[in-house]
This record gives sequence, C-alpha cells and structure tokens, in this order.
Amino acid sequence: MEFSRDAATIEVVVAYHSGYGHTRRVAESLAEGVSAARRSVQCLDVSGMSEEGWTMLDQAQAIVFGSPTYMGGASAVFKQFAEASSKRWFTQAWKDKIAGGFTCSLSMSGDKYSTLMYMVTLAMQHSMIWVGTGMLPSAVAGAPDQANRLGSSIGVMAQADNVPPEISPPAGDLLTARSYGERIASMLR
Amino acid sequence: MEFSRDAATIEVVVAYHSGYGHTRRVAESLAEGVSAARRSVQCLDVSGMSEEGWTMLDQAQAIVFGSPTYMGGASAVFKQFAEASSKRWFTQAWKDKIAGGFTCSLSMSGDKYSTLMYMVTLAMQHSMIWVGTGMLPSAVAGAPDQANRLGSSIGVMAQADNVPPEISPPAGDLLTARSYGERIASMLR
Amino acid sequence: MEFSRDAATIEVVVAYHSGYGHTRRVAESLAEGVSAARRSVQCLDVSGMSEEGWTMLDQAQAIVFGSPTYMGGASAVFKQFAEASSKRWFTQAWKDKIAGGFTCSLSMSGDKYSTLMYMVTLAMQHSMIWVGTGMLPSAVAGAPDQANRLGSSIGVMAQADNVPPEISPPAGDLLTARSYGERIASMLR
Amino acid sequence: MEFSRDAATIEVVVAYHSGYGHTRRVAESLAEGVSAARRSVQCLDVSGMSEEGWTMLDQAQAIVFGSPTYMGGASAVFKQFAEASSKRWFTQAWKDKIAGGFTCSLSMSGDKYSTLMYMVTLAMQHSMIWVGTGMLPSAVAGAPDQANRLGSSIGVMAQADNVPPEISPPAGDLLTARSYGERIASMLR
Repeated sequence: MEFSRDAATIEVVVAYHSGYGHTRRVAESLAEGVSAARRSVQCLDVSGMSEEGWTMLDQAQAIVFGSPTYMGGASAVFKQFAEASSKRWFTQAWKDKIAGGFTCSLSMSGDKYSTLMYMVTLAMQHSMIWVGTGMLPSAVAGAPDQANRLGSSIGVMAQADNVPPEISPPAGDLLTARSYGERIASMLR
Repeated sequence: MEFSRDAATIEVVVAYHSGYGHTRRVAESLAEGVSAARRSVQCLDVSGMSEEGWTMLDQAQAIVFGSPTYMGGASAVFKQFAEASSKRWFTQAWKDKIAGGFTCSLSMSGDKYSTLMYMVTLAMQHSMIWVGTGMLPSAVAGAPDQANRLGSSIGVMAQADNVPPEISPPAGDLLTARSYGERIASMLR
Repeated sequence: MEFSRDAATIEVVVAYHSGYGHTRRVAESLAEGVSAARRSVQCLDVSGMSEEGWTMLDQAQAIVFGSPTYMGGASAVFKQFAEASSKRWFTQAWKDKIAGGFTCSLSMSGDKYSTLMYMVTLAMQHSMIWVGTGMLPSAVAGAPDQANRLGSSIGVMAQADNVPPEISPPAGDLLTARSYGERIASMLR
Repeated sequence: MEFSRDAATIEVVVAYHSGYGHTRRVAESLAEGVSAARRSVQCLDVSGMSEEGWTMLDQAQAIVFGSPTYMGGASAVFKQFAEASSKRWFTQAWKDKIAGGFTCSLSMSGDKYSTLMYMVTLAMQHSMIWVGTGMLPSAVAGAPDQANRLGSSIGVMAQADNVPPEISPPAGDLLTARSYGERIASMLR
C-alpha cells in the first residue's frame, strides 16, 4: 500500500501534545534539526491518534516525546497516549528504538524535570534507548537567545510566556530543540 | 442544603482513580484507618468529578491522592483530575491542607516512586503539607501479611496480582493503607 | 551548660552545605525570614557535624535542608550528612518535625528538582512533614528581582552565576528564601 | 605502556560502590553477562579511584553505575565519585558512551527508583546514552528465582536481606543483572 511505503520512510517521529501551540513550536524546531541532518521526520500530534499514527511510530527509528508541563507533570492528553502505547509495551514492539523528550511551561524551571523524567521512564518501559540534549548549559544563564539557556541535559526544557507561540518561547529554546534534533538524527543507523 | 452540610463534615477525602478495583481496595483500607481514628472520611472516585465532589475537596482538611501506576506514572484519568484542579491552584484554595498519596501496580517496585513523587509535586503546587507513611519497612521484605512490606515512606505502595481485588493486594498492603489513614487523621486540627 | 540551653531554644535549624558561599546566602536569607516571624533559628553547616549540631537538630521543631546541585543531585557532603542521620532514622527521632529544602546551581533549571526531590525523600524516611514554598511563580519568568522567579513549589530553587556570593544569587532568589523562612515559621506550634 | 594497552581492551566498566558486598554481587553478575557476550569487562570500586581507574573509564565504550540505596538515594561515596567526574563533564569526555545503572537495598521497592533516576541524570550530564534493562517484569511478582522480580525497567533493582552477600540478593536479582550485562554488551560497536 502506498501509505505504508511512505510511512516507512519516516525515520524520526516527534510525538507531542501541545495545549496552546508553544510546545508545538518546540516540536517544529526539533524537526527542523532532524531535517537539516538529512533525515526524514514528522511531527505527530498525539491528541488524536489514528492507526496510521501508530504505524508511523512502529516503523520509526526514533521517537521524541513532547508535552507541556501541566500541574507538575506531562499532560493528561500525553499520558493517555502513553497508556495507549501499552499494547506496544506488551509485545515490546518499540524495543531498541532511540527515544528523547522535551517540555515547555510558563516558568524557568518549575517541574519540567518531573515531565522529562516521566518520559525517560516511559521510554525505559518500552526498552528504548534514551538520548539527552548532549549540550552544556548556556554561558549566560537564562539568556533568551542562547541554546540550552535553562541548563537541561535529560531533554529539552523550554519556557514560554503567556503570549502567542510566534513570540515565545524565545530563540534560545528553539535553538536548543533544533540542535537536539540534529543529535537525535546523528544516532540513527 | 442537606448535602452541603454533610459535605462540610468530611474531614479527609480519599481522591482516587482505580482501573480494576485494586487501587479502590487500598483507598477503602485507608478510609477505614481514618474512621478508626474517629474522623470523617469519604472515598471520591475522580474519574467522574461533579461540583459536589469539588466542594467536598474544598472543604476537607486533608486530601489523599490515589492512582494506579500505568506505564510508569499516575493514570491519565488521575492526571485529568489534577489538571482540572488548576482552578483551585490559581486561587491557592487548597493551601495548607494535609496531603498524602498511594499507588498500586502489578510489580513489587517498578515505577511506583514515580507516581508518588508526582503526587508530592501536585500537592506542592497546591501549597499543601505532605505527610508520608511514617513507617519503617517491614521486618521481612515483601512478606504479604506485613505492613509496609514494600518499604515505602513517601506514601503507600501496594502490589496487586492480576486477580480480582478481593484476593490481591495482600493483607500487608491493606494494613499499610489503614495505618496511613490513622496517621493522616492524627494530623488534623 | 550554656550552649545546651541555647541549643534547646533553636526552633528552626537550616542544615546546609555550601561549596562556594552561594547556597549559604540562600540559607541566611531563609533564616532572616524565620527571625522576622519571631522564631529562633540557626544555620548549621553540615560539612563538619559535631555532637552539639546533632543535638540542635534533635531538639528543633523544623529542619530545612540545603545543598548545591552538583552533577545532577545534592552534594556528596550533604549526602554524607544524610547517611549519618540514619542513626536518627533507626529510632525515628525526627518523626513529625517540619521539613523543607532549597538548592542553588549555575543554571536556571538544570537538575534542581532532582535535589529537592531527594530532600523530600530523605525527610519522608525520617517521617517528617514536608512544607513547600507556598508561592506561585513570579509574574515575569526569571526576573532577577522577583520572588520565585524560577517557579518552584517543592522548595526554593536559586540560581547563582560564577561570581562571588555577594553579587549572585540575585535579590529575587533571596526574597524567595526569606518568604519560605516565614512560611516554615508559621508552621511551628 | 603495558597498562594502557590492557586498559584499552576494557569495553565495559562496572563503576560501583558497595557498602557490605551485596551491591558488589550484583556488579559481578552483571560483569558475567558482559563476559558471556564475549566483551571485555571490569568491575571498578569507585570508593578508591586512581588515575588508572579514570583512564579505564575514559577508554571504555560503556560505563554501568552501581550503588546501594542509602537514606533514599545513591551513596555519598558514589556521589563523591560522580562529583569527581565533573572534570570529564567539563570536557564532555564521556559523550556518547553507553550508560546503565543498578542499585540494591533492604526493601523490595523503597526509594530505589530515586537512585536509578539519579544515575540517569548523571549520565545525561555526561551526554551518555542510557540503556535500561529491556525486560518485562517477572511473571510472579517478587519470586526470588525469577529475573526482574521487582519489575524495573530503568536499571536493575536488587533487594538484599541483612545477611551475608553469599546468601542474598537471591538468584532472581543476579539473573536480572546478568541479563542486563548481556544487553549492555549488545549495544557496543
């Protein structure tokens, strides 16, 4: 079938939920990084999973999880997706795929680590291989134009003000995501 | 109104989600402990929250959170409840209430700590006061009839086999929950 | 003995380790908050524990833990102190004392949550009662002069640049600590 | 130089601390698994690091971290090693090495997840690639002779009673470690 052949060409799937578009911007920047490294990539909104979406995930070499941090953890929508993945867990269908993660919230730190650690835990249940940002913290802590301005190594932490996603998160966080996409791409066979 | 008056008398609310009844049994044992200490208590299934449920929570002195551990964290249903509580977070309506937590899963350890830590994080966002089990680990690790057989201090960890909840979790875990209920009750004004 | 009498009057002990003085500044600001609430307080450097230090902790109503975040967690010096406290754990000598925590590191977020969660875990092993910051995040994320500029609820997160502690962490973080000290004081009998 | 040549042949280093020998048994079982997969391996006690030890780590393809869980987290001795590794962090000398972890404590669950998550965090700061156990939980929860009897996926969780390490941890935990060693070996170039 045509679709299956196309789906088979997606090497990296960015499986994300975004409430207001800020996390989506991080997802898109990450995807740009993967593309820049000449690997196929697709952003997949997990709030409305179809069979095609699951097939795309099953065929990918890498899955990068993304979610806002809501009330101290990954969003309920993302968690619903994680629970729906239990069918794959049962057969260990995602074993040895590359995994990564990112999150976005209103404050600089808050509980973003909690969300990323949940994603690590989910990936480990699936026997995936976790790859972090591979970046040292920015030279100037919090500088809006510097990559890894929040100083995270497990996955990408982004911060967005309560304004439209075109304005925030700032350039530095998008750079972090883009660079992470390149790193994820470099891990593929 | 009759209901409101009754609701106002509930001192401890056990706000839980249970997928197959095992976590509910832990909730009920915990409630027995609160009752034994002569404090009013009610188990509240958070999968179908009504205005009355929220009022009950708003008026309680203590809220104990309960959820199975699914795919490495609190259930999506529980997380949905947590996100719905953001209205209370915004006004800090639950500030200084006593908080506690429990979880149940198929394995002895697994990622139960992840679920409990999420509950601590949620409670801290609400500026609640966290009370743990206050128990040393059981003398014999894992002994099915001993309290705190899994050795948890943050909150109650229970383990249930894939059998009806009447059979599992074992007596030890229910004892842990009951004892925890007594401890929560002892913290009330 | 004079000292013992004085020690007995200390209601809040700030038990901290500081590598270069930045975490100490947070400790001192926290202590100022406790004092402002007219409660007795002492900062105790846990890198050189004496019998008097342990007695002071045993007699306190509240213990607030403090440590830099080094390589993703509480410092080894702090951990050594935590392990030395196992004698108190064994007899549950600190049961029902109030507990809190704070940490300081070079980046805005990094792994500060990891350090605070370790402190919660330690406190729960001691059957202490955990009190968080009780503060919403700052209106402007990261603003150096605003309280809770990093958006933490579990305990105080502070960020210090690689400059002398007189210059950094900024006023906002010291405000957060001071306010936390007042909150801890408000929890005492 | 002879030593350098030999050191260069070590593909997997098990960098562990053991207080009473129980964690060492887990380390040795893990090393057996690596050897069974025909990869060179050495157990390195991190409580007394020499220059040769650091060189061995620098030249390895994979480092597996091991520590008892003491007072809710990795031991102070292990943390001291982690902090000493900051020199490598600064130059990102361990970037892209494979990482894994294991822990052992008296109770079935307790705070072992806390220790493993700390090891993940440490590995991520070093930009290493994290590999978990890749195992589903045992069919019978807690069964002393079954692999992954405690149900961990992030790394190996072992439980040892307060008896000599020849007697405990039980066969199941050693099997888990051995199997994990084989998995780590399978990840090497």
